[in-house]
Amino acid sequence: MKFCSDCGAAVQLRIPADDTRPRAVCDACGVIHYRNPKMVVGTIPVWEDQVLLCRRAIEPRHGFWTLPAGFLELGETTGEGACRETVEEAGAHIELGSAFSMIDIPHVEQIHLFYRARLINLDFAPGTESLEVRLFREADIPWKDLAFRTVSQTLRWHFEDVHAAAAHHAGAAGPLGVLELGAHGVAAPQPGLRVSSISPQRG
Amino acid sequence: MKFCSDCGAAVQLRIPADDTRPRAVCDACGVIHYRNPKMVVGTIPVWEDQVLLCRRAIEPRHGFWTLPAGFLELGETTGEGACRETVEEAGAHIELGSAFSMIDIPHVEQIHLFYRARLINLDFAPGTESLEVRLFREADIPWKDLAFRTVSQTLRWHFEDVHAAAAHHAGAAGPLGVLELGAHGVAAPQPGLRVSSISPQRG
Repeated sequence: MKFCSDCGAAVQLRIPADDTRPRAVCDACGVIHYRNPKMVVGTIPVWEDQVLLCRRAIEPRHGFWTLPAGFLELGETTGEGACRETVEEAGAHIELGSAFSMIDIPHVEQIHLFYRARLINLDFAPGTESLEVRLFREADIPWKDLAFRTVSQTLRWHFEDVHAAAAHHAGAAGPLGVLELGAHGVAAPQPGLRVSSISPQRG
Repeated sequence: MKFCSDCGAAVQLRIPADDTRPRAVCDACGVIHYRNPKMVVGTIPVWEDQVLLCRRAIEPRHGFWTLPAGFLELGETTGEGACRETVEEAGAHIELGSAFSMIDIPHVEQIHLFYRARLINLDFAPGTESLEVRLFREADIPWKDLAFRTVSQTLRWHFEDVHAAAAHHAGAAGPLGVLELGAHGVAAPQPGLRVSSISPQRG
């Protein structure tokens, strides 16, 4: 940030009174401009033993595979944003489940949050940001061609859960703990959120 | 946003090509400025059967009680931010636990995330943003003087957990599932995250 977005004057980077970090401060109109990490929200859309992935038509990581996800927008809940991205990128119809993984990536100033989801039907198609959308069994997941480490981590956890559920319930996956979208204020304990963080890649 | 923070020219609010929402677009330098929800991170610092609350010395909700929490900063994980806020607002020394509650508040463009935490000692004191910091037993929680609904919701869930643990373990609270800060990439299933959302208050 070089200019004040409120008045257009040049800003100074300095530590304001009662603060501990440098901020973009406007001496013309007095506004302090804060920057904060952004949330990326997405889903793990499941159909039987398969997961829906999208091949990216945009940078970064053009041509690589990802779970449907994108930046949370103003005015929506994380679940609504995750559903919206799943429609936009994969044209998929889902039933949203519970929050599944939350991964901090401080060096890129993002938090990635993935929800469990169940495909309602097989009527999906790539949106403008995807080259291709298809279902993958675990054995076919393109691990080396995944776009982001948060996606590979989330998929590893997902298949761990599938194996654990198979061991416990003779093949039946655990309940999704489905949230009702728009049922504001309704809350239920959510099973097994994974929380982690990712540091810069070395080498 | 009225002016481009990159070049200082006036911005236009319009829907860019390949987008669906109005954005602040700079026709002088071509930059599109996105705004996204912010994360507020905090803790539930527990000592025996008591919880640490702070009375706010700042607006909004000056004079009301809150759990220590604040905006997540660039370059930190949600857990690091929650610890930092607990030090800044309450001067408290804590052992951080697992993620406990995540509440969407779309109408104020925030997500509030609270971590479980255990006070290591009773050496705490109000920071510059707090008038007073003290421990409360459940019966003494100032429910009507709490600053935010995310705080009252989180405290209600916390005491539900305490009662459930007492019923199951004859008085012993459940394990915190303590995360090691800085142990990047290490992950463990986290017990019972509550996910919810809050809509605008009526009346």
